[in-house]
Amino acid sequence: MRTRQIVLASRPLGMPTADNLRFEEKVIEDLKDGEVLLKSWFISVDPYMRGRMNESKSYAKPYQVDEPFRGSIVARVVESKSKLFSADDLVVGDLPWMTYITTSAENLRKIDPVIAHPGYYLGILGMPGLTAFFGMKDIGKPRAGETVVVSGAAGAVGLVAGQIALLNGCKVTGITGSDEKCKMLKSEFGFNEVINYKTEKNIRKALRAVCTDGVDIYFDNVGGDITMGAIDNLNFHSRIIVCGQISQYNNTRFSMVPDILPRVLTRSILIKGFIVRNYGDRYDEGYAWLTEKVKSSELKYKQTIVKGFDKLPETFLGLFSGINQGKLMVEAE
Amino acid sequence: MRTRQIVLASRPLGMPTADNLRFEEKVIEDLKDGEVLLKSWFISVDPYMRGRMNESKSYAKPYQVDEPFRGSIVARVVESKSKLFSADDLVVGDLPWMTYITTSAENLRKIDPVIAHPGYYLGILGMPGLTAFFGMKDIGKPRAGETVVVSGAAGAVGLVAGQIALLNGCKVTGITGSDEKCKMLKSEFGFNEVINYKTEKNIRKALRAVCTDGVDIYFDNVGGDITMGAIDNLNFHSRIIVCGQISQYNNTRFSMVPDILPRVLTRSILIKGFIVRNYGDRYDEGYAWLTEKVKSSELKYKQTIVKGFDKLPETFLGLFSGINQGKLMVEAE
Repeated sequence: MRTRQIVLASRPLGMPTADNLRFEEKVIEDLKDGEVLLKSWFISVDPYMRGRMNESKSYAKPYQVDEPFRGSIVARVVESKSKLFSADDLVVGDLPWMTYITTSAENLRKIDPVIAHPGYYLGILGMPGLTAFFGMKDIGKPRAGETVVVSGAAGAVGLVAGQIALLNGCKVTGITGSDEKCKMLKSEFGFNEVINYKTEKNIRKALRAVCTDGVDIYFDNVGGDITMGAIDNLNFHSRIIVCGQISQYNNTRFSMVPDILPRVLTRSILIKGFIVRNYGDRYDEGYAWLTEKVKSSELKYKQTIVKGFDKLPETFLGLFSGINQGKLMVEAE
Repeated sequence: MRTRQIVLASRPLGMPTADNLRFEEKVIEDLKDGEVLLKSWFISVDPYMRGRMNESKSYAKPYQVDEPFRGSIVARVVESKSKLFSADDLVVGDLPWMTYITTSAENLRKIDPVIAHPGYYLGILGMPGLTAFFGMKDIGKPRAGETVVVSGAAGAVGLVAGQIALLNGCKVTGITGSDEKCKMLKSEFGFNEVINYKTEKNIRKALRAVCTDGVDIYFDNVGGDITMGAIDNLNFHSRIIVCGQISQYNNTRFSMVPDILPRVLTRSILIKGFIVRNYGDRYDEGYAWLTEKVKSSELKYKQTIVKGFDKLPETFLGLFSGINQGKLMVEAE
């Protein structure tokens, strides 16, 4: 049996292009005991994958040249030689970008499409949801009445982070990159204020205008100038949750910015970088909470689904221009 | 009765000079009930006072023009109309820079010169000691075997912070500004490694050479280039304790530096700015621990004492060129 796969053709310097990825065909070997044959259905594209295209070790292991990209994939079990799963089960796991995959049944998680659309398990009920949950709850510790700002607010993580703050009684401002997304954040997700960073030149002033009590929590998905504007508005004892820095991932060197540490000192600011894997022993707690809130409709979500395995490279690259509303993924079949 | 005092004559722009301070004489009024008349003995000069010379609110209230400087002072009670203190008691408190002071007896703390030199109550048994204690213990949380770097290591706070890390079984590198201080840190205080930042051009490389396992805790008293060099060596899950930024206090705008947040993200770094007052409800715990360790000689200390009330302005300014070994103060009588 043959499968198609997408491998890293070459490492990008700066912004990646479709040429850095290559489609291949290869033969899948017969299943061994404990393995399953999967057919990919929804394939997640995530900003952190950019870091894995570099040679240097970041928090995730680098992709190897001529080896497949990998990430979260929702797949259907075609054949099983494992007691854990049967044919037609839906599973999610960290898997290679292939149309058909043979893999050990371990480290796969069965999902329930009755609770939510299968794509949700790549988003609010997957790593992005857990990321928002642990970042906001464990680092941000939002208290009722506090002012919260979320950058990348209409993205896979930002949508959840903002809603968690709203559920905690905070006043939430979302920063995003189009008027359409701004409208969505207010009308569909209940954000109190929104800022379109592509049309608003001075983020510092724009935030000052809407966050009249200053900012207590800044949930950062983007970094760069937007973040510098947010930091200027931070209150005493405020917290910066450093969850993503997508504006910086394609830089070949660190941007020069105003030194933030003098302000960190005078305002007793907490800054914490994290990756969801730091909370690996608490995933069940996060999944349980998120699932309950999705079931009760206290948390809503949004997905942008691009059809066709062939579209994976361009969809991944689209993350860096913000083509997505909510979680971005490719539907393989 | 007359007293001499030192007031803020004008607000500095950039590095302050002696002209920003002015000596005055004034008449002290008679004691009211609940007040004490004090004679200043040891007067603390501290880097944070620079911030109070600015008009803008930092974490401490700005000094007012034509009003006295103030800070921690060890004084002798000359006369008391309070039940709390008797003549000849030694006290420490936040007091104006005057040779004689009338003040409410509240908020003064009696000190015991048998336990330690009275100057220690401005240093290791005062705010700098508490600052090191809470910063290192509460934010740094040093674990045996970890690598700790302290900047401003030979200063009032740095000496204590480094020793606390040593008591916790860490490997400690001190960064300071002279070969003499380097020698002192190693021979008198047991620091494992030392770096003279005035002769060592590349702090990043110098730290890499001595911290072969990377850096787990960076206790920052200075900020600027030294801090950027330290950040390049930080490990996954490392902590930056932002206690001081003395290299930046005389800047008129924020320095431009490489953006640290992408590294904060990929290495799950914690950065926490703090001031000792954040721990106001736990001072007793800190005092008790520090006093015990001083009594048992597990913690040592160093003081630089300049004689003469007249020397206060130049001694204060000397902080910014690092004239001190350990705690810098003026002996008024």
